[in-house]
Amino acid sequence: MAEVERWFVDIGLEVRVDAVGSRVGRLAGERPEVVMSGSHVDSVSSGGAYDGALGVIMAGCAVGWLAATRGRPLRTLEVFANCEEESSRFACNFWGSRAMAGLIEPEEPEGLADGEGVSIADAMRICGLDPAGLADARRTDLAAYVEPHIEQGPVLEETGDLIGVVDRVVGVRGLRVSLTGVGGHAGTLAMAARRDALAGAAEIVLGVERLARGRGAPTVATVGQIEVRPGGFNQVSGLARLTIDFRHPEEEVLAELDGELRGLVASVAAARVLEVEVSQGTMQAAIRFDGRVCTAIEQACRDAGVAWRRMPSLAGHDAQVIGRLCPAAMLFVPSKGGVSHRPDEETQLPHIVSGIEVLARTLFRLAYQPLP
Amino acid sequence: MAEVERWFVDIGLEVRVDAVGSRVGRLAGERPEVVMSGSHVDSVSSGGAYDGALGVIMAGCAVGWLAATRGRPLRTLEVFANCEEESSRFACNFWGSRAMAGLIEPEEPEGLADGEGVSIADAMRICGLDPAGLADARRTDLAAYVEPHIEQGPVLEETGDLIGVVDRVVGVRGLRVSLTGVGGHAGTLAMAARRDALAGAAEIVLGVERLARGRGAPTVATVGQIEVRPGGFNQVSGLARLTIDFRHPEEEVLAELDGELRGLVASVAAARVLEVEVSQGTMQAAIRFDGRVCTAIEQACRDAGVAWRRMPSLAGHDAQVIGRLCPAAMLFVPSKGGVSHRPDEETQLPHIVSGIEVLARTLFRLAYQPLP
Repeated sequence: MAEVERWFVDIGLEVRVDAVGSRVGRLAGERPEVVMSGSHVDSVSSGGAYDGALGVIMAGCAVGWLAATRGRPLRTLEVFANCEEESSRFACNFWGSRAMAGLIEPEEPEGLADGEGVSIADAMRICGLDPAGLADARRTDLAAYVEPHIEQGPVLEETGDLIGVVDRVVGVRGLRVSLTGVGGHAGTLAMAARRDALAGAAEIVLGVERLARGRGAPTVATVGQIEVRPGGFNQVSGLARLTIDFRHPEEEVLAELDGELRGLVASVAAARVLEVEVSQGTMQAAIRFDGRVCTAIEQACRDAGVAWRRMPSLAGHDAQVIGRLCPAAMLFVPSKGGVSHRPDEETQLPHIVSGIEVLARTLFRLAYQPLP
Repeated sequence: MAEVERWFVDIGLEVRVDAVGSRVGRLAGERPEVVMSGSHVDSVSSGGAYDGALGVIMAGCAVGWLAATRGRPLRTLEVFANCEEESSRFACNFWGSRAMAGLIEPEEPEGLADGEGVSIADAMRICGLDPAGLADARRTDLAAYVEPHIEQGPVLEETGDLIGVVDRVVGVRGLRVSLTGVGGHAGTLAMAARRDALAGAAEIVLGVERLARGRGAPTVATVGQIEVRPGGFNQVSGLARLTIDFRHPEEEVLAELDGELRGLVASVAAARVLEVEVSQGTMQAAIRFDGRVCTAIEQACRDAGVAWRRMPSLAGHDAQVIGRLCPAAMLFVPSKGGVSHRPDEETQLPHIVSGIEVLARTLFRLAYQPLP
């Protein structure tokens, strides 16, 4: 974050740290209302360098270029570097943007802990932030938000378009499943007497995959986390925990999937005489972005002579949270091989440059011109 | 171990620490050859208090009682408190008994590391032991070994017998499986494009269970360890690792199972286009214990008026390693509910007392009387 701050200063922006530690680079305009662009600087564990730091860099380049060539804007421009979006350390995704939108629950700072048991509140104190002042991050001055981001899928690469104008985000839901059977010795516990929690978990993993495949694209469902106890090679598992992540653009389909997945878990547990607990994890409604912001991005693409297409985002993003405060939309640049959340994720430099040009033209329309 | 040493002294035994840190309590006899009894003091992670510490305590009680009531034996009696049998910290089971039998490979002390990366050699140095002196643990003076242990299964409780005279040990084999697919984002990686390593692992878990159940008792096969990478709830698994433990009293059946399990893994990997590596883990041949030692235990049961039955051990034990040095057998006491490798494993006190009496009578026959 120190690097981000130095760079904001270098490109002529005034730097501010908000109450949760996100960094904001500001180019003051004639009016107080703010047109904001940016993304998050954290990544998933074992992730890559582009999701979402590239969005912060693209926004900084675009605003820096506007500051240098167009001077003071009509509306104030800000670059947003969100401190946390990916739940990489705490199970608290969209932390920075939720703080802006006043969507952090009072119990979260003390209640959410990392793998070592450190709460977010303690982690904030270690960074010199006061958890009691968290409400100060709330914003009421936003006029628009544009989030540049890598696509994380193969569509742009396949169609040859350079920009994705993202007009909606799929809904994402998560379930946390805990199965309790009876642990025991791998030699002395006869197969017929077993209530093996891992075997139940394995059935659920395959059932989740079958359900999602059965519905066809764009349905996706994933078991990404699994752990068993006691976990010795010569021990039958008495406990298994897993997560289910499932996504679809339609809320009705998400609700159906939720029912089917809970039914799957219940029937596996019943058949294997396992105790089961299912708790709600992620719960992000499918949302539509603002039509006017999407149109501004499309006009910028036309101005730049760059091929573009409208598309949904299949992943969650800060823009869907900030979109509850102000008109918002996203701009995707291609992901090489459609790869993301992996160390080899990449966006080629010419694609980044096209993206910055389109973003700068979009922000010019939103911040330097009277709105239509 | 300090507690074990103090207790050995209290019951009149001379204490010795061998080259790997096992403790031996000695009651010198007229002759140098040694009749040994005991077990291991370590337990599996999340295990209980009885497997195998009870065996050390039973042997100490029996030898202490003989020392107090029968005086000096014809053959020397020793109580063995093995420092490591369960692979609880290092993947090195039967460490203490293998050291006695000269069965530790030269590369093991430096090559085997715990979860924090500490090698056995370093751990030995921390305890004041010299890894270079490991060969000194080797024994050539053993005349017989009797290992008392909890059954870890439900047979004695079901039949009402108080003692199991263990005349063989099932063979145990282990496989370590590593599956490599393609990781990615749980939202943007379409189901049809996935090569999900965890889904492959789940198929193997269920296949292992199906194979073992299909063959019927006494076949057992267990996946007890599983881990995935990257392991985030919103990440498709690019890597999954699991262990397979399988057991049967007949070597031919073990060899067949080995082929079937490797075939299962290969076919799942091929169907899901996963890279696969299978390496050999545990490899313990099925063995038969010494008929004369079994007979001595049976005679002791008759003398004590205690109901007994011959039975196999479905788990591996030090006696199968020490049995390569001298005639050996085991004596089982009942496990409440057949439970083992769990914190609630228990053997009721009257059953322990019966076991100590039978063991003392057995050791009397082996150490105080001329052998037939």
